[in-house]
Amino acid sequence: MRNFAYKCVASMPETLLQIQVLRFRNGTSQPVSDWLAREEPLEIRVRGRSVAVTMRTPGDDVELACGFLLSEGLLKNRSDMVEIAPCEGAEFPQNILNVFLAPSVEFDFERLARHTFASSSCGLCGKASIESVHQHFPPVSDHFRFERSLVPTLPDKVREAQATFSKTGGLHAAGLFDANGKLLVVREDVGRHNAVDKVIGWGFLNQQLPFVQHVLLVSGRASFEIMQKALAARIPVVAAVSAPSSLAVEFAIESGQTLIGFLRGVQFNVYSHFSRIA
Amino acid sequence: MRNFAYKCVASMPETLLQIQVLRFRNGTSQPVSDWLAREEPLEIRVRGRSVAVTMRTPGDDVELACGFLLSEGLLKNRSDMVEIAPCEGAEFPQNILNVFLAPSVEFDFERLARHTFASSSCGLCGKASIESVHQHFPPVSDHFRFERSLVPTLPDKVREAQATFSKTGGLHAAGLFDANGKLLVVREDVGRHNAVDKVIGWGFLNQQLPFVQHVLLVSGRASFEIMQKALAARIPVVAAVSAPSSLAVEFAIESGQTLIGFLRGVQFNVYSHFSRIA
Repeated sequence: MRNFAYKCVASMPETLLQIQVLRFRNGTSQPVSDWLAREEPLEIRVRGRSVAVTMRTPGDDVELACGFLLSEGLLKNRSDMVEIAPCEGAEFPQNILNVFLAPSVEFDFERLARHTFASSSCGLCGKASIESVHQHFPPVSDHFRFERSLVPTLPDKVREAQATFSKTGGLHAAGLFDANGKLLVVREDVGRHNAVDKVIGWGFLNQQLPFVQHVLLVSGRASFEIMQKALAARIPVVAAVSAPSSLAVEFAIESGQTLIGFLRGVQFNVYSHFSRIA
Repeated sequence: MRNFAYKCVASMPETLLQIQVLRFRNGTSQPVSDWLAREEPLEIRVRGRSVAVTMRTPGDDVELACGFLLSEGLLKNRSDMVEIAPCEGAEFPQNILNVFLAPSVEFDFERLARHTFASSSCGLCGKASIESVHQHFPPVSDHFRFERSLVPTLPDKVREAQATFSKTGGLHAAGLFDANGKLLVVREDVGRHNAVDKVIGWGFLNQQLPFVQHVLLVSGRASFEIMQKALAARIPVVAAVSAPSSLAVEFAIESGQTLIGFLRGVQFNVYSHFSRIA
């Protein structure tokens, strides 16, 4: 099932992507144009060695690399750094930065072992990131359908079950629903990815996996990482209260997942695999 | 300068901490009681080796460990995992989980090298995390003051300068201000930590560091990681539009930083080092 929505209508310099989405409001839908924030991997290499892969919005990447290394205590003075340059010759040179340090600078590689996922190929890009995940987790099947009228009911169910949020206003939540829109489990965390991990771990420990007829709702935004975790648990429908990133949408399309965003009241956007929302 | 605010008034099981904060509204302030979401490090060990350190809200940690390992493709079936237990004998055993796998399970350690910061001591806790950062970045000095009436003006300045957010609703922003509340730089990213790295990298590349008379504003929440990055750049005042975590507040107190949260309109909360807000 290919998706017709993800057509790049226009592209602002680096940070934005304009696409067609299906907007639902009070049960009716219409295609509208929408903008997505871009998300792409950036690999930072120091003296030829990969020290970090982070998912970021392209733009100001040299600043990002410097700020990251400085925050980790590995760069101190402007003179420590001689040059930062894209990895010329790579397929996506803009997604790999080589940091050249002054010869006198001591760099402790042991202090830095941050890789958010395993990829250091020179073809590093969003597409390669998706393919890397698909080596372990193939796309989900197309069979599951979810009743459209149930979608707007999901956020309130999670909110009612959220014990902590109402007190602090400071926690992310992830909720899992069955095919009838019944809430099965809610977990909260300062990190949205942790809340999703807890939901999946709940399924693992209670032998409820795979979640092939289930819907995952996350507070806030939908990123590549959230979609990857949902795919690992075989979840066919992911809904987010806020915006998805470009790579979350690409990932959903390639993985057979229905991605819903901006789910607020009776209105929501569907970014991929519309037919599953019956 | 010790802070009198961070007194644990009450503690809900694990996830919440009640404290006293100073609430400003229309220029006047009063101490009020507020709840914080807890943030503490969790180390996951498999066959005795550290495979991940993540900042999380305590609770459902066994689920978190299982969901994380499953998402990474390293756990597949319930029978792969024999037991998960806290690291007994450690100072904070609840923050270190030992995952015991069935002998037949092959575990590819090379695929997993995710450490969000360098710490694998058995004394792993929020306090140890703060001390680890202070080894490289001592607390900031007490000299800088920031005019209280300028605080409510900061978010609009960032919002006006945010090119992308208004289109996508999907980007985090970090803005840096001088002592007069003048906006110096704004950076956007799908990741809040990346936006902060870009701001700091801007200062590094333009030889504007250290930011000793500056205020950092971040969209969304304030976490340990954001405060750590601000300290690396020597920023004395950090303001967040949403809630801080418990560890962000503890970090700010220990690091001499003024932490402002829930900055919305004329109202905001101050969590640490009040006297700097003149």
